[in-house]
Amino acid sequence: MKKIAFMAFMAFSNAVMAQTWIWYPGDMDIWTGNRINNLRTEDGGFFPVFWRTDGHCQTVEFSKTVELAEAEEVEIAAEGRYSVKIDKRYQFGMPGKVGIPKGKHTIKIAVNNIVSPPAIWVNGPTIKSDDTWTVSDYATAERSDTWLGIDGKPMFDRIDRRPSGYRLPVTAVAPAKKETHGREIFVDFARESMGYLMLNGVKGNGHVNVFYGESPDEAHNKRRAYLRDKIVFTADSITDMMTMTVTHRTADRDYRLPHSRAMRYALIECTGNVSLSGVTLMSEMKDLGKKYRGSFTCNDTLINRIWDVSAYTLHLTDREVMIEGIKRDRWMWSGDAIQSYLMNYYVFMDAPVVRRTIWALRGKDPVKQHINTILDYTFYWFNSVYDYYMYTGDREFVQRIYPRMQSLMHFVEGRLDSRGMVQGKKEDWVFIDWSPEKMPKGGQLSFEQIVYLRSLEAMSLCAGVAGNKSDSTEYHKRAEKLKAQLIPMFWNDSRKAFIHNVEKGIQNNYVTKYANMFAVLHDLVDEKRKNNILNNVLTNDSIMPITTPYMRFYELESLCALGKHTHVLKEMRGYWGGMLSEGATSFWETYDPKEKYPQRLAMYGHPYGKSLCHAWGASPVYLLGKYYLGIKPTKPGYEAWEAAPCLGDLKWMRGDVPAPNGNIHIEMTRQMITIYAEGCGGGTLSFKSRTRPKSSYGTPVHEGDGQYRLKIEPGKKMTVKYKEMK
Amino acid sequence: MKKIAFMAFMAFSNAVMAQTWIWYPGDMDIWTGNRINNLRTEDGGFFPVFWRTDGHCQTVEFSKTVELAEAEEVEIAAEGRYSVKIDKRYQFGMPGKVGIPKGKHTIKIAVNNIVSPPAIWVNGPTIKSDDTWTVSDYATAERSDTWLGIDGKPMFDRIDRRPSGYRLPVTAVAPAKKETHGREIFVDFARESMGYLMLNGVKGNGHVNVFYGESPDEAHNKRRAYLRDKIVFTADSITDMMTMTVTHRTADRDYRLPHSRAMRYALIECTGNVSLSGVTLMSEMKDLGKKYRGSFTCNDTLINRIWDVSAYTLHLTDREVMIEGIKRDRWMWSGDAIQSYLMNYYVFMDAPVVRRTIWALRGKDPVKQHINTILDYTFYWFNSVYDYYMYTGDREFVQRIYPRMQSLMHFVEGRLDSRGMVQGKKEDWVFIDWSPEKMPKGGQLSFEQIVYLRSLEAMSLCAGVAGNKSDSTEYHKRAEKLKAQLIPMFWNDSRKAFIHNVEKGIQNNYVTKYANMFAVLHDLVDEKRKNNILNNVLTNDSIMPITTPYMRFYELESLCALGKHTHVLKEMRGYWGGMLSEGATSFWETYDPKEKYPQRLAMYGHPYGKSLCHAWGASPVYLLGKYYLGIKPTKPGYEAWEAAPCLGDLKWMRGDVPAPNGNIHIEMTRQMITIYAEGCGGGTLSFKSRTRPKSSYGTPVHEGDGQYRLKIEPGKKMTVKYKEMK
Repeated sequence: MKKIAFMAFMAFSNAVMAQTWIWYPGDMDIWTGNRINNLRTEDGGFFPVFWRTDGHCQTVEFSKTVELAEAEEVEIAAEGRYSVKIDKRYQFGMPGKVGIPKGKHTIKIAVNNIVSPPAIWVNGPTIKSDDTWTVSDYATAERSDTWLGIDGKPMFDRIDRRPSGYRLPVTAVAPAKKETHGREIFVDFARESMGYLMLNGVKGNGHVNVFYGESPDEAHNKRRAYLRDKIVFTADSITDMMTMTVTHRTADRDYRLPHSRAMRYALIECTGNVSLSGVTLMSEMKDLGKKYRGSFTCNDTLINRIWDVSAYTLHLTDREVMIEGIKRDRWMWSGDAIQSYLMNYYVFMDAPVVRRTIWALRGKDPVKQHINTILDYTFYWFNSVYDYYMYTGDREFVQRIYPRMQSLMHFVEGRLDSRGMVQGKKEDWVFIDWSPEKMPKGGQLSFEQIVYLRSLEAMSLCAGVAGNKSDSTEYHKRAEKLKAQLIPMFWNDSRKAFIHNVEKGIQNNYVTKYANMFAVLHDLVDEKRKNNILNNVLTNDSIMPITTPYMRFYELESLCALGKHTHVLKEMRGYWGGMLSEGATSFWETYDPKEKYPQRLAMYGHPYGKSLCHAWGASPVYLLGKYYLGIKPTKPGYEAWEAAPCLGDLKWMRGDVPAPNGNIHIEMTRQMITIYAEGCGGGTLSFKSRTRPKSSYGTPVHEGDGQYRLKIEPGKKMTVKYKEMK
Repeated sequence: MKKIAFMAFMAFSNAVMAQTWIWYPGDMDIWTGNRINNLRTEDGGFFPVFWRTDGHCQTVEFSKTVELAEAEEVEIAAEGRYSVKIDKRYQFGMPGKVGIPKGKHTIKIAVNNIVSPPAIWVNGPTIKSDDTWTVSDYATAERSDTWLGIDGKPMFDRIDRRPSGYRLPVTAVAPAKKETHGREIFVDFARESMGYLMLNGVKGNGHVNVFYGESPDEAHNKRRAYLRDKIVFTADSITDMMTMTVTHRTADRDYRLPHSRAMRYALIECTGNVSLSGVTLMSEMKDLGKKYRGSFTCNDTLINRIWDVSAYTLHLTDREVMIEGIKRDRWMWSGDAIQSYLMNYYVFMDAPVVRRTIWALRGKDPVKQHINTILDYTFYWFNSVYDYYMYTGDREFVQRIYPRMQSLMHFVEGRLDSRGMVQGKKEDWVFIDWSPEKMPKGGQLSFEQIVYLRSLEAMSLCAGVAGNKSDSTEYHKRAEKLKAQLIPMFWNDSRKAFIHNVEKGIQNNYVTKYANMFAVLHDLVDEKRKNNILNNVLTNDSIMPITTPYMRFYELESLCALGKHTHVLKEMRGYWGGMLSEGATSFWETYDPKEKYPQRLAMYGHPYGKSLCHAWGASPVYLLGKYYLGIKPTKPGYEAWEAAPCLGDLKWMRGDVPAPNGNIHIEMTRQMITIYAEGCGGGTLSFKSRTRPKSSYGTPVHEGDGQYRLKIEPGKKMTVKYKEMK
């Protein structure tokens, strides 16, 4: 692993926080993650996650010692039952205002809240709740925490912005199409959406049954629509039959259903004498600004549509936390999440949602099982912290999460085999990917060792950021040791590829793409072996094909890393273009052109089990940003970065990639590159040219084979005239 | 440690449970313990425990596979949001009734509840919720659990007896004395009590301020009464100012205050134009039957009063869980609890409350600190499981709690010093006792090693019950090894006693009673050293005296164990009799005859900080039962037992000691012993006689020195004529 200079850099540094609601680190994230995970229903039944749900700390104590030149009165609020103790004396009840005398005093606010994380708000002339307060669960004292928004400012900066009340904004959307057949209304909102249906002009008493659909077929299937609601109206009451929640019926004729659902279509059925005048969708989506920070436009309108629909797909799943799909699971899955994060860095740079999802996936100690119960998903979790630090440079978060990285790694270490390698235990799910052939999962899997190796590197990097030098050195050693075993153990010289696994010391004569792709991506093999992998594995039709967009993410990424840009554009036009030609308004969980509607909607034994808005379907935004616009950080938080733009078969392209504090804008034709970066460090532009290029400043360095390199200064527009290689 | 035959015996065996509400093992206990611990207030402020509060599992899945000869309809209820899945199919919403077809089917009920432990009730012709259901937190699957009452039957045996609603019964009690002075009413309920004040005949609007007192002085001190309430009455609303809870004001003129408080006295102050006609106490106490199962009567009426007030003190603190005192902490403390349990076995045999308190004190994994943060309290916790098993024979509980014993012991093992001994770390509280001299707490303390040794023995015993033979052997070995180090390391031949501690390898020339008492109680020294301890420590006035009833428990017990029955009776008359002569209606946390009222009410820097109803004050019930009536189990659950009655200076005594399934009744004069036991195994009667005794059956065996032994058959009354030794 490359040595990285550990210096505080730009955003996310340990700056003094403005006044805000505060709580015990991680608790609001874990609690919110649970709230979101618990929204899943199937056929109208509550469908919980099948891994352990951790809770927040029920009782915590916030404390601060102040030295006051003048007495002051402070306003106090809390989420939960609380008490205020000034020095050694309790105040009566739950005081909203407390006087603190002049001089040195210790304020302790104890809060108990079983329902949501204990949190406080304190506001006085000089005393304010911020991250200088200590918070203790009575076992571990920590610096208190809060959430910052995308703008880097506290999200809960007013007494009436209570953290547990955080919800995404809603906007009214009228149906694009509405059909009435007798007691049924069928609506189409024109594209995949998420939100609350509003029943308008409700009159009379009876049941209203709602059947949602990502497809018309699903919405019309009253017996098996994946998502359904049933509301009973009487003269006095309105009952949500799913949760048996009864509310008072008022004179208001508009009723918003209590559950936010994924839909493009909905069928609303009225029974009894209840009637509606219409329905509205209260679309619930995160406000990510008028325009996404990342952008991509080129001469190919299909690619442009693919980018747009990918970004929209990602937007729908970028919510309180990043979820994998909006209809079916609505859960955080570590393997899906790491891809969402990477895509996010190229479109929204929504760092807060990444932090929240990382905390929420990790949960509390002790570690009792792999993340989502999946061996690989534990390793993706580590790797996602690595990526997060590289893209954002957020040292503060790494320092806060490092103890949880340690305890998760101790869990992993307790399960290593005699070679120091990872293997799935009986209770672990060794996933890798859904695949058309049955994949061996026993013994040492080459793929799992590579993601584990990357986790050791993440440990070493983050230990350094957290100031734990001995861990940093130790994990670096372990990573090097494991790396040295990979080729002897898994490389097969006759297959000229990494084999899939070793069982009882014997190489299985079976090659899959997984380990080979990751070896390329993590630069674990030399150029010769990379070529072997390209020819013998990645472009070899006898190797089991990848059918999920999940692993296609890495497959296409490794092809890009191997310079196959034109090939990858063709794949995009076929695969994602194929979904668009079938009418997709967001990208799907899986796609097989041979499967026909409505049979292709089925998955996991449910006729509408397939998710038609799945985050991992949005990978083009990542590929186009990182490998075509060609931009990535080379030091944490874009303190240094590289642009290696590549058109593939495009004639021109232009776009923006968000760095934490500014954008990198790039334009490229076959003769000209323009680049402008702000809010980040110096960059390097790499490109090929048939002739010596002319730059607006600096001197292009020729590195052989027509490869040139140029230094880019932030805030200074670079224009390069060059000649594209054939 | 004596080898014990591990056989299922009588009550508490793994019998099939009747229908009941069920939940994840330990969760209702931990949740209830939290609920109780959180009731503490001081000066009107919420005063939480200062150790970490663990939560229950938020989401669990109950499952059972059934094979039905006929289809059946089952009734389902849950505490929490739930879903029902039959085989692979979810039912809509939260169905109250579900039809299960004929044949083999799997029923899965998932329940999410952040507020209280997920629990279910299932009732069909053949399918019923009981402990044959599996319950999983999605990491560990366990057999589901419930609470049994003192009668051994499920406490939550009806759909409307929801476990989280468990509360103690209340009974209206009129004040014995009522004085009205202007806008103030002062009431005296004649004895220490606990419950809710009811304001009667409330009219008008204004504030009602209530000041409670265990003493008149406290109730009259409006500024510092330890417990206070403030209620605001307006035309429409009633507000509890402590929790800011607002309720609707109805036509009802009686208002029950929301908090159950300790009191004998109360001062009620009305402001504005609010007025009351009077107040009633809704006394809140556990129903322990019309008559306690244990009893003690003798010729000395002072000792009889001491027994009665002790039993009442214990009754007030034997609640949902066993708390240490009803006014101040109202918390579970492991060191106090182990004494409460032992007293309980001699008065109520309330085994369920012991189980609940043991679970609640232990909490969840991971162990992050010692129980109550106190080193010694962790060891008392282990020892309390040992005692519980001996007194109740409840193998089921030991099997369920054993994994938590293991993880707590692993925590202890991670902190052992290089000699394999325990020492307090920086974050640990090494308590032992409150003492008039400052006690050394550094290095290896002899006392701590002895309670740790006993914990190793508890591990060995309980591992055997849990079927873990290797643990049982291993912990037996560790106990023997530690035992072998005690005398070489801590016994001082010139002091002829255990010294207090060793620091840096050197014996501190300081002797305290603690280790010496425990060495006697746990039979760790020979008769010669026991005599040394008696003469050089226990009856030596130059050794620091014990001033808390807490450690007096063990001091008096060891004096009893050394045959000093007459001496101990004198101590009881002086110490407990002294409290009675000062008007005590329950026994206190500490008592020093030299301290005067009201200064003696102060403790912990609070003028009314001392608890006047403290469980550890009730130890006479234990001493009189175990060392005068002389009854104790010698095999778990009284499968075998011993009666070694001893009058001390009493002329006669009679009493009952409860075994799990029946009582042992004993009467003794200076010439005659009568004993009758039912619901337990065979016993042994040991006594001294100047002449050869005559027994109604069996043959007294003379063991030398006038010591006789006789076998007692259960259900067969034994009468022995003997002659008391001088």
